[in-house]
Amino acid sequence: MRSFLPLALLVVTLPAHADTVASVASPDGAIAVELDVNAEGRLAYRVSHRGQPLIGDSRLGFILRNGRQLLRGLQLEKQVSRSHDGTWELPWGERRFVREHYNELRASFVERDHDRRRFDVVLRVFDDGLGLRYEFPKQAAMDEVQIQEELTEFAIARPATAWWIPAYEWNREEYLYARTPLAEVGVAQTPITLRTADGVHVSLHEAALVDYAGMNLAKGEDNHLRASLTPGSPAKVVRHTPFNTPWRTIQIADRAGGLVESSLILNLNEPNKLGDVSWFKPHKYVGIWWSLHLDTQSWATGPKHGATTAETKRYIDFAAQHGFRGVLVEGWNVGWDGDWFANGWDFDFSKPTADYDLEALAAYGASKGVHLIGHHETGCAASHYERQMDAAFTLFERLGVDAVKTGYVCDAGQIERQDTAGGPVVREWHEGQWNSNHHLRVVEAAARHHIAINAHEPIKDTGLRRTYPNWIAREGARGQEFNAWGNPPNPPEHEANLVFTRLLAGPMDYTPGVLSLKGRGGQPIQSTLAKQLAQYVVLYSPIQMAADLPEHYEQHLEAFQFIKDVPADWQDTRVLNGEVGDFVTIARKDRNSEDWYLGAVSDEQARTLDVKLDFLDPGRRYLAQIYRDGDAADWKTQPFAFVRQSREVTRENILALRLAPGGGQAIRFVPMAGPAKR
Amino acid sequence: MRSFLPLALLVVTLPAHADTVASVASPDGAIAVELDVNAEGRLAYRVSHRGQPLIGDSRLGFILRNGRQLLRGLQLEKQVSRSHDGTWELPWGERRFVREHYNELRASFVERDHDRRRFDVVLRVFDDGLGLRYEFPKQAAMDEVQIQEELTEFAIARPATAWWIPAYEWNREEYLYARTPLAEVGVAQTPITLRTADGVHVSLHEAALVDYAGMNLAKGEDNHLRASLTPGSPAKVVRHTPFNTPWRTIQIADRAGGLVESSLILNLNEPNKLGDVSWFKPHKYVGIWWSLHLDTQSWATGPKHGATTAETKRYIDFAAQHGFRGVLVEGWNVGWDGDWFANGWDFDFSKPTADYDLEALAAYGASKGVHLIGHHETGCAASHYERQMDAAFTLFERLGVDAVKTGYVCDAGQIERQDTAGGPVVREWHEGQWNSNHHLRVVEAAARHHIAINAHEPIKDTGLRRTYPNWIAREGARGQEFNAWGNPPNPPEHEANLVFTRLLAGPMDYTPGVLSLKGRGGQPIQSTLAKQLAQYVVLYSPIQMAADLPEHYEQHLEAFQFIKDVPADWQDTRVLNGEVGDFVTIARKDRNSEDWYLGAVSDEQARTLDVKLDFLDPGRRYLAQIYRDGDAADWKTQPFAFVRQSREVTRENILALRLAPGGGQAIRFVPMAGPAKR
Repeated sequence: MRSFLPLALLVVTLPAHADTVASVASPDGAIAVELDVNAEGRLAYRVSHRGQPLIGDSRLGFILRNGRQLLRGLQLEKQVSRSHDGTWELPWGERRFVREHYNELRASFVERDHDRRRFDVVLRVFDDGLGLRYEFPKQAAMDEVQIQEELTEFAIARPATAWWIPAYEWNREEYLYARTPLAEVGVAQTPITLRTADGVHVSLHEAALVDYAGMNLAKGEDNHLRASLTPGSPAKVVRHTPFNTPWRTIQIADRAGGLVESSLILNLNEPNKLGDVSWFKPHKYVGIWWSLHLDTQSWATGPKHGATTAETKRYIDFAAQHGFRGVLVEGWNVGWDGDWFANGWDFDFSKPTADYDLEALAAYGASKGVHLIGHHETGCAASHYERQMDAAFTLFERLGVDAVKTGYVCDAGQIERQDTAGGPVVREWHEGQWNSNHHLRVVEAAARHHIAINAHEPIKDTGLRRTYPNWIAREGARGQEFNAWGNPPNPPEHEANLVFTRLLAGPMDYTPGVLSLKGRGGQPIQSTLAKQLAQYVVLYSPIQMAADLPEHYEQHLEAFQFIKDVPADWQDTRVLNGEVGDFVTIARKDRNSEDWYLGAVSDEQARTLDVKLDFLDPGRRYLAQIYRDGDAADWKTQPFAFVRQSREVTRENILALRLAPGGGQAIRFVPMAGPAKR
Repeated sequence: MRSFLPLALLVVTLPAHADTVASVASPDGAIAVELDVNAEGRLAYRVSHRGQPLIGDSRLGFILRNGRQLLRGLQLEKQVSRSHDGTWELPWGERRFVREHYNELRASFVERDHDRRRFDVVLRVFDDGLGLRYEFPKQAAMDEVQIQEELTEFAIARPATAWWIPAYEWNREEYLYARTPLAEVGVAQTPITLRTADGVHVSLHEAALVDYAGMNLAKGEDNHLRASLTPGSPAKVVRHTPFNTPWRTIQIADRAGGLVESSLILNLNEPNKLGDVSWFKPHKYVGIWWSLHLDTQSWATGPKHGATTAETKRYIDFAAQHGFRGVLVEGWNVGWDGDWFANGWDFDFSKPTADYDLEALAAYGASKGVHLIGHHETGCAASHYERQMDAAFTLFERLGVDAVKTGYVCDAGQIERQDTAGGPVVREWHEGQWNSNHHLRVVEAAARHHIAINAHEPIKDTGLRRTYPNWIAREGARGQEFNAWGNPPNPPEHEANLVFTRLLAGPMDYTPGVLSLKGRGGQPIQSTLAKQLAQYVVLYSPIQMAADLPEHYEQHLEAFQFIKDVPADWQDTRVLNGEVGDFVTIARKDRNSEDWYLGAVSDEQARTLDVKLDFLDPGRRYLAQIYRDGDAADWKTQPFAFVRQSREVTRENILALRLAPGGGQAIRFVPMAGPAKR
């Protein structure tokens, strides 16, 4: 029976005393962070917001597999502070310009004995939150570092409600969001969204996940959330010094919408490494997809095969007629006919099926200004895909296919890695270190061919689109396909959950706009018609699908007009109102015109939201083209009740948005000639 | 955007329908277990108690690193039921005879496609709970199995309170128990104790942890507790078929005391593999230990060195004078003088320090019937210890040292493994697969030398003492030493927590009986004098220390008499009352006489407990030698207020036990000549 400490240290453990050794605050002073070293030489940080504790004493440190634990006997060697204020431009995005304004503290810690190993804790504090990361300098006592666990904590100091999805389950990220007291969080994926009892909104996530294991958060005692890195072997993370961890991020906002307007995650990523990326232009697309989930067509060849030359021509014609740049075709290549789910190694990423004339279709599309969108489902045979991807991208580049949707359909922890051809196949987690590198290898290879990547069943988004702007979108949540066959389908609150949780990480290819409002076997989608339109504004992505079948759009041409008009690239974004999981209204200004667009979605409740139009440009009159729920609309009883109307407005006006149960509203604001009337 | 299932399976996922394919009940019918297979071919079990759901649908399955997930597409191939009713004898323990009465169901599942991999789910249902384990038969499609996660769930179907300590923290097991709503459990070590709102007591743990990773429990959504195996590499568990997992155990009792009286964990272990183990006899010991924690002596050599020849002789004399068989000496061997905590590889397990004459002391002890108790602190250099242990045990065996306390003092996850001399040192978790095998290698090597092992900072106890009866005790919780230097020290409720949590796993070497009631620098121990005596009955171990200094016992000879009298081996055990974390009264009958002993402990509350003496043998009169709190006793103000009194009693009597705040009571019942008066 012995303490966990040598006697020499025991003596000093009696007092719980800790000294604050360094501190840093946000430019506006509202957020203050302090670093402590206690008598054992253990590190902790704490965060206050407007002078009140928000994150209590939270430990920092590591358990290593190839070395002693790195968490005690540490002392501050030096600290350096600096500030930065600048503005950078997004090649595409929710806004054009991003202000990057922070105060930085670098605190260098060294072990006071043993091998005097060292690392820095770097804090960047912005007005909208902070990032914390560990930086390991090159040092003789630590070359290869095998991290068994990172002990970073987030000790939430106020009672709070949490919105979260579980980690380490058999599925990946495709869960409905749970809304529970913080105390009832189990092991959660990030981002996790919290709202304190006194109304402060917090999102915990990470930025710049590169060559490291994704961080999940496990609730320990009290309300301590602790990092739980995604497993890998021989350790969760294996790196050589020098290296940095990803940024552990804490976004803080008074309004729920403040989290959505925050650029913290992007600001904590490295600048564009790809140079000129003007070869990617945000756009909308249609494609052979919804029919596959309806099971009226199949990925596999045969009588139901969707990806035929004739069917694809039909989609190209439809796209050309209605102004969509892209046509996605799934099931176009060889490998779908077996049990691809069990064996992704059968996929051939350069070989079309016999009934699909890729070359001719690419040429046919080009003649009409339509680009095919490539599809690379891997079935999680990631190493198999890596061996073929360069040839596959070369083929696509030659054919003008400049956007590719990748897929990693398999259960959690089943990403198949094979380091050398013929070596053993081992499984990795979707959020593990190996897969974080795999995704970047794919994105960089695609960039060399001027191809953009839209990854499904992906590793989570941590803002890497700033550094790799051809990584345009991801899935990584429950998408529209669950409305085709999900049990249950997505509930009315789903969009209002996604906006304030998954979407905080980055763009999501949700594939909105199913105006037929029915899934497989006629299962109703829990949405009104207008809400499907609002999704295009509310759920940001630089590549947006019109997911429904052409024949369905022909039946709803009036509503379809909004989908045709709405852009996929923005100058600016404002969240006008919203509560996590309940409702949200977002206004965005087109990047390529003076038009503004508004989208509002509700949950299962009917609501009337009074919206000030003061986001509109001063001195201008706008024609507001309104797509709203009909007066009797209700997702359960009258989902198709829908009204399109127009009226003239200026920034002085207030609009009362009436949202039906499961409803929404979409508005396009078109500037009118001449000045606003007084 | 794609489902997690191939289309072929998608079709059948729409209904959530599941079929019950097998079921089994306890001999008394109170506990019923059902196995389900749903439309996806996923397995689940559920448990009802007295007809009401206790554990809801809980998934079963595995995520593998070197193969596809093993959790879907399964079908029942066959099921076999059998029953067993027998009684076996414990060579030492809380009771002499154990009834083993259960109904068993073996359900064999096979994948309906792919490689048709197979495993059995085996359920053994007793009247006091159940065990569930997976058995993997030898099969061509699965030879080496690398388990990345076991997905076993425990979906607690009723609101409940939980008593638990966290897993994956920097410390090992030495935490105060948290008492929270089940919903607020984070990631917990096992055993974890639950009490449902309607008063059912449940302990979740495991039995027969052999060549597998220890199971922790992480709370997922709702009240689902999910297995979280302790990490290792290349996977959490690496085995070859055929193999079995440990038993996942669910103890169920109406009274808190029912959990303590349960032999479920022992019944789910294999019978004694060591044959005649009469060479180990439970006993009590004193030793050079408390002074080290008081920091008045040191493990290291020098002026404060405790383990000197002269000082050890003083303890041998004291042991001989008062009838203690053993004398533990810590700091006797070479290796303590450096920073042993950082480098356990300096320990020499056969080389005494210069001021410690091991041979002479062993002979001196033998001349007085006293045996030295060996001490092997490894500092977690487990492989280093394995290389020396056979020589060390040979030495001890020759000197009559037949019990050894081992130690693994280091932070969590820092067990040092080196597969071949000179190879890299890698760290493993205390509860990981590698360490589960290390401990058994030590225990089996010790058995060959007729030596018993008392492991500190150990892997958790899972009942292996049935199979290896020389694995006599462990620490694995916050022990008495925290009263010397802990911040905070152990609170008054600590024993009432331990009895219903840690002690459910097996014997604990708590090292009770510090009658001086003071720690380092006079820090008060939060206990009355009588409570220190009660610990000997309440906290079961076959090896019990009188932990205080000889000179302190000389000052409390009246109370010390109970420590001299109380045995360490029992015929029978009864829990007379108790509530988790509040109080408990336990009666035990001496294995080697007709005496009964009673111990009662309270938390910070004063209580009067009316106790029926109907556990006493009928027709007998007993002299009750009572050691109780004085009327004004209170751990804060009058911890030494203490009364010893005697009275005659029979099983017809009811005693009112008055326990002070932080108090307790200890009673010895000695049969008197002649029949009980009527």
